Amino acid sequence: MPLDAELPTTEAAPFECLTGVRVVDLSQYEAGPSCTEVLAWLGAEVVKIEKPGTGEAARFGYQREPGKDSWYFQQFNANKKSITVDLKTPGGIELLKSMIAMADIFIENLAPGAIERLGLGYDVLKAVNPKLIYAQIKGYGDGSPYETYLSYDPVAQAMGGIMSVTGERGRMPVKPGPGLGDTGTGMLLANSLLGALLRCQRTGQGQHLKIAMNDACMHYIRLAWAFTQATGNACGRHGGKSVSGVVVPMGNFPCKGGGPNDYVTLYCHAGVPAQFQRLLEVIGRSDLVGDPRYIDQAARSTREEEVNAMITEWTMQHDKYAVMRALSEAKVPCGAVRDTLELLAEPEFLERGVMQVVDHPTLGQVQLMGWPVLHDGVAPKIKPAPLLGQHTDEVLETWLGMDRAAREKLKDEGVT
Amino acid sequence: MPLDAELPTTEAAPFECLTGVRVVDLSQYEAGPSCTEVLAWLGAEVVKIEKPGTGEAARFGYQREPGKDSWYFQQFNANKKSITVDLKTPGGIELLKSMIAMADIFIENLAPGAIERLGLGYDVLKAVNPKLIYAQIKGYGDGSPYETYLSYDPVAQAMGGIMSVTGERGRMPVKPGPGLGDTGTGMLLANSLLGALLRCQRTGQGQHLKIAMNDACMHYIRLAWAFTQATGNACGRHGGKSVSGVVVPMGNFPCKGGGPNDYVTLYCHAGVPAQFQRLLEVIGRSDLVGDPRYIDQAARSTREEEVNAMITEWTMQHDKYAVMRALSEAKVPCGAVRDTLELLAEPEFLERGVMQVVDHPTLGQVQLMGWPVLHDGVAPKIKPAPLLGQHTDEVLETWLGMDRAAREKLKDEGVT
Repeated sequence: MPLDAELPTTEAAPFECLTGVRVVDLSQYEAGPSCTEVLAWLGAEVVKIEKPGTGEAARFGYQREPGKDSWYFQQFNANKKSITVDLKTPGGIELLKSMIAMADIFIENLAPGAIERLGLGYDVLKAVNPKLIYAQIKGYGDGSPYETYLSYDPVAQAMGGIMSVTGERGRMPVKPGPGLGDTGTGMLLANSLLGALLRCQRTGQGQHLKIAMNDACMHYIRLAWAFTQATGNACGRHGGKSVSGVVVPMGNFPCKGGGPNDYVTLYCHAGVPAQFQRLLEVIGRSDLVGDPRYIDQAARSTREEEVNAMITEWTMQHDKYAVMRALSEAKVPCGAVRDTLELLAEPEFLERGVMQVVDHPTLGQVQLMGWPVLHDGVAPKIKPAPLLGQHTDEVLETWLGMDRAAREKLKDEGVT
Repeated sequence: MPLDAELPTTEAAPFECLTGVRVVDLSQYEAGPSCTEVLAWLGAEVVKIEKPGTGEAARFGYQREPGKDSWYFQQFNANKKSITVDLKTPGGIELLKSMIAMADIFIENLAPGAIERLGLGYDVLKAVNPKLIYAQIKGYGDGSPYETYLSYDPVAQAMGGIMSVTGERGRMPVKPGPGLGDTGTGMLLANSLLGALLRCQRTGQGQHLKIAMNDACMHYIRLAWAFTQATGNACGRHGGKSVSGVVVPMGNFPCKGGGPNDYVTLYCHAGVPAQFQRLLEVIGRSDLVGDPRYIDQAARSTREEEVNAMITEWTMQHDKYAVMRALSEAKVPCGAVRDTLELLAEPEFLERGVMQVVDHPTLGQVQLMGWPVLHDGVAPKIKPAPLLGQHTDEVLETWLGMDRAAREKLKDEGVT
């Protein structure tokens, strides 16, 4: 920590966290890009290395108009720069190494063995820059029997135990909508990258980070490990309930309307017995307040169907927001199941800055999800994802001092 | 960055990332504790502030034996220290402020308004330590219409859109097993905390961080935002498929055995047409290779039932691991749905260190999930979660220089 005397007297901007940190980003799709997007929001200069001509494959996912970048690409690549480098040319490999010499972080999530085949393995890049933090995302860990197998988000969610604990009782396993294998992995790696940066600032030492998507998924079901270890049984599926399945009442209850998301989730905490008594008042069953048949979790757990039926009779008479308000105001935890269109229409997210509308040069106005942690009350300003190669000239000039002639030579040679 | 000449000549240990960083942890259950556990694994000194007598409520979740700490508590509090402080006494508040003066980070996830009622709001603690990074987790953001409502993980997953995109087609919304509202929130906040530490090291400035569990959940479904924006429709539920629901084949297929998790998930990537042709070979339908009815996603998307039936006929004849091996070796992405008992029995996680067995003073041997990012090939060593107040003497002495007499006085006064 510098002495107070050396400190700047002006307040740094809230997201000037990684000012001056340079990231060479060879990652694609979601697991890697979600990770480097966090670094970009925290103020790092993240440069995507893309294939000339087509760019990263994710530019084609969920396109609204052919020939324009996808919305998928927008969501995971805001605030980054893009340069084109053909890594199939020797000049492209040399150029990448020149950038590595100037970088703090390198990240890739190619198929198993691909980065080594490109001649860009850790040992090679460490020799170029001993302070480099080199990060890799793979499907499986080193030494796993499945190490050479391809993985994608759903495969990781199956193999990492998540699907076995998601779904309705007595029915098939379900893949959660959230990308635990992708963004879930990216968030863990980002933490280690930031930790490695702090270590490097203190010691000057680089580091090799590696995460398996399979292992990352296992991180997000710690409650299931606890349940399995406490009971000796595999954790099951319980619809809208938590992994133990024992809390009554807990789960999703249908509301008036009958639409696919006309439900509330509600939950009476086992440790707060008064919550259920308050729920009884709200649903018009104050006659049962204090009744020993429903007084605590132990009593209610033998009457789950009965308790759920009594609640459902009431929830079906009201829309989900009215149910949520009535219960929440009585301090009973309850939330409406909101769909993506409802959420996009809620003004609070734009007001708080966790969603922002940005002007994209070809797509026009794009509403994007930003970084949900507010620093000193504000969210980082979202800049649209880069067009392919938008920053090639800028980065070659500012990182490597290349003049126009040198840059045009690389282009003529098919390197950029 | 210090000059090379000042650098230590010995290699720092892989997880000496946050050496010297002190965290005062007033968080409970999962969202906060999952966050501070990352800090502990990265080398910070994390001190839980607990209520004398009972401690944090999570010590009672999923107990194996009454009177002993829960397995839940073990999973989220490894590598931390515990001190008891009664925050209902003026002496307890004073003691906490003395610790804040020596700390880098403070974190809390109490109910809305509770920390301010304790007299420990940001303005108060900032005055004690201007360099403090003060972090809060709440259910909803400031200015939300639901700001004062209680939230727990399932409520956040409902309100944040996650449940609307999780479940079987045409059926009710489902809560994913993973704690997106809890651990999902914790991982995002940890990234901002590490960013704020880097900012503080450069500028000497503290910061106020705040995250809403509702907003955090929305972060994990970016793919759903992309789909909604590309199509104008709310994202639906598609069982084992991804949020767009359009890829064929994709999803969970039943295998021999008929148990609740005798399924594989498989997925032919739209951008890699050869995957489905290889799948046809594996399932014994090489007669269909090259057939225009199945040649690409566009063709197959009109024949989903037919394609799924042909695959199921084959998967039902083999156990899930055999199916996975056969497809994966043909470079078709496929994974078995593994349950928590199967995963606990797999040696690779212990070998890689992402799971470890620790000796706990009262529980005996406990197998815990650790940090899945390997640094230079190793995982951080897991230390068992602290007993209640185990480090009260140690922390009061090392942080505050209190001698035995001063510490005993605090105890006699009911402060610790």
